[in-house]
Amino acid sequence: MNEPATAVEAAVAASPLHQLKDELDIVIPTIRNLDFLEMWRPFLQPYHLIIVQDGDPSKTIKVPNGFDYELYNRNDINRILGPKASCISFKDSACRCFGYMVSKKKYIFTIDDDCFVAKDPSGKAINALEQHIKNLLSPSTPFFFNTLYDPFAEGADFVRGYPFSLREGVSTAVSHGLWLNIPDYDAPTQLVKPLERNTRFVDAVLTIPKGTLFPMCGMNLAFDRQLIGPAMYFGLMGEGQPIGRYDDMWAGWCIKVICDHLGLGVKTGLPYIYHSKASNPFVNLRKEYKGIYWQEDIIPFFQQVVLPKDCTTVQKCYIELAKQVKEKLGKIDPYFDKLADAMVTWIQAWDGLNPTSASFSNGKTG
Amino acid sequence: MNEPATAVEAAVAASPLHQLKDELDIVIPTIRNLDFLEMWRPFLQPYHLIIVQDGDPSKTIKVPNGFDYELYNRNDINRILGPKASCISFKDSACRCFGYMVSKKKYIFTIDDDCFVAKDPSGKAINALEQHIKNLLSPSTPFFFNTLYDPFAEGADFVRGYPFSLREGVSTAVSHGLWLNIPDYDAPTQLVKPLERNTRFVDAVLTIPKGTLFPMCGMNLAFDRQLIGPAMYFGLMGEGQPIGRYDDMWAGWCIKVICDHLGLGVKTGLPYIYHSKASNPFVNLRKEYKGIYWQEDIIPFFQQVVLPKDCTTVQKCYIELAKQVKEKLGKIDPYFDKLADAMVTWIQAWDGLNPTSASFSNGKTG
Repeated sequence: MNEPATAVEAAVAASPLHQLKDELDIVIPTIRNLDFLEMWRPFLQPYHLIIVQDGDPSKTIKVPNGFDYELYNRNDINRILGPKASCISFKDSACRCFGYMVSKKKYIFTIDDDCFVAKDPSGKAINALEQHIKNLLSPSTPFFFNTLYDPFAEGADFVRGYPFSLREGVSTAVSHGLWLNIPDYDAPTQLVKPLERNTRFVDAVLTIPKGTLFPMCGMNLAFDRQLIGPAMYFGLMGEGQPIGRYDDMWAGWCIKVICDHLGLGVKTGLPYIYHSKASNPFVNLRKEYKGIYWQEDIIPFFQQVVLPKDCTTVQKCYIELAKQVKEKLGKIDPYFDKLADAMVTWIQAWDGLNPTSASFSNGKTG
Repeated sequence: MNEPATAVEAAVAASPLHQLKDELDIVIPTIRNLDFLEMWRPFLQPYHLIIVQDGDPSKTIKVPNGFDYELYNRNDINRILGPKASCISFKDSACRCFGYMVSKKKYIFTIDDDCFVAKDPSGKAINALEQHIKNLLSPSTPFFFNTLYDPFAEGADFVRGYPFSLREGVSTAVSHGLWLNIPDYDAPTQLVKPLERNTRFVDAVLTIPKGTLFPMCGMNLAFDRQLIGPAMYFGLMGEGQPIGRYDDMWAGWCIKVICDHLGLGVKTGLPYIYHSKASNPFVNLRKEYKGIYWQEDIIPFFQQVVLPKDCTTVQKCYIELAKQVKEKLGKIDPYFDKLADAMVTWIQAWDGLNPTSASFSNGKTG
């Protein structure tokens, strides 16, 4: 790695959070040169990148100088996973979850290649990764809502009436960051509000309460691989599949019910990234329309799902979830049978690449 | 009412929200002259005030000129309610709920007399009541979390993955506002962090998800009397009671489980008021210590409470809740027997003063 070239880099290098550089990988799915990393250099250069190249494997992806990375294209995925490569999507950013699987680190930060450094209202560049690390290293509070939001943030605490027995909180498994500029809207909303931009900087991190589902976006997301990694499967999307743009949503529903079951926390809010480019709403509509219809059944399914007490590891929870997906969602469309099988394949592939993680117990059940 | 005296007053008078002036009462519990209203004049003068005078009824409370108000002291409460006046607390701001009962309007805004107009980060004075009205007049979304917070706020919407069937939302019953400067901490936290001030302006309103409890503070609170009024009972606190400072908390737990049951929404976040003065932490500790202990049992009780399907009005829900309080919390301390009886008395007194509301059905059960 190069010497710090700027004051910002020196400051980043001196930060205690920077210590996580040996425990965190950055996963980027892409089909193009990674010029967007130039803007992130002061914040991300100390970290190792795992680049998952989507689409044509013969194409060369250029990575800016000075970044430490490994890159996998479709040929690599097929070679490493063999027949189990069928669980990894092609021609869809869902392929990023292959990067989660090959990482050997404790934490993952994943970011899209059209996301840039955002500025806070004072004009200061936001170190998104630093905020994600803060979110992951401080507890979550899923059992009772704190009206001043994250009680572990500087200048904040638990308010009057917050039970003392719940103030220790639980381990945080997932940190979901937001986006300024182009909001993460579905195709119908994009079509109706083509000019809407998100300019509202909400200075808060909060725990999503136990029992509540949320739409998890994969654009700016960090998580603890050891706590929840095997559930962070982005499903079957893209080429050969009937839907797209539900990869992160699927993962979000799965991780939330498993975190709730295992007593782990999911946070949303800060940090913001700057999302530069709206995707084509007409293309999105084609990818989404079945999902828009199916989610009316999928969400009640996830709201009602109960995992048995003996599901004490993420893997056991995920296999059980796959079984229930097949039973309950298989009747909507044969796609869900295929997806349920792919969920099982994913766990087999994960355990194959991460042999020591298979028997970990990750927390309290309940 | 006087002619608008300033540009701000003229602007307020011209606002469409100002139309609610015939449908909203402002309830203020106090033991002193209401000089704090001077700062609120541009925003609150068009509205009718209900002042509940606590403590010595022979004392005269001065109200700044130009405000339209009615004032009730303890003698008035005793005269109006007769023996049922026992359900209204004395020497505690819990007495404010008498004002909710005597109002004939659809909406209530209640505010403490040590709360002043806050400024947003641009330095603009915040019209707290206008924001509460916006919150109450737009739907809530308790069944699924929207990561860009209030989808009905300007420049915001539902994000990708939010089920379309849930986008209509439900009626909003309660709007819980926050506080800059002195945070609403319990006595132990006040003692440990005497200098902590809340300076974080979080530019968001959000629905508290179904099934999640929160600590409701009565300092800056608005609600729809027709939808939830009979549940907005602030309990037995102050003189002759073993606890204080749990009046708003008690109301918050009760309204939340009833709103969840009836399919109504509860919002928290904006607007901020400026809370000027920390109360004495030693006095607070004496008032709170039993509550701090008891809430470890009270909160699991409210988390598990189930209201039967035939509880289709707020009154029926509240009577059922009183019954369960007596059964389940009575064994903690005889105080809860007395509180359960007072809850029933409160409903009788409410229905006596609001004869047409007793049979209203307020929403869907579920």
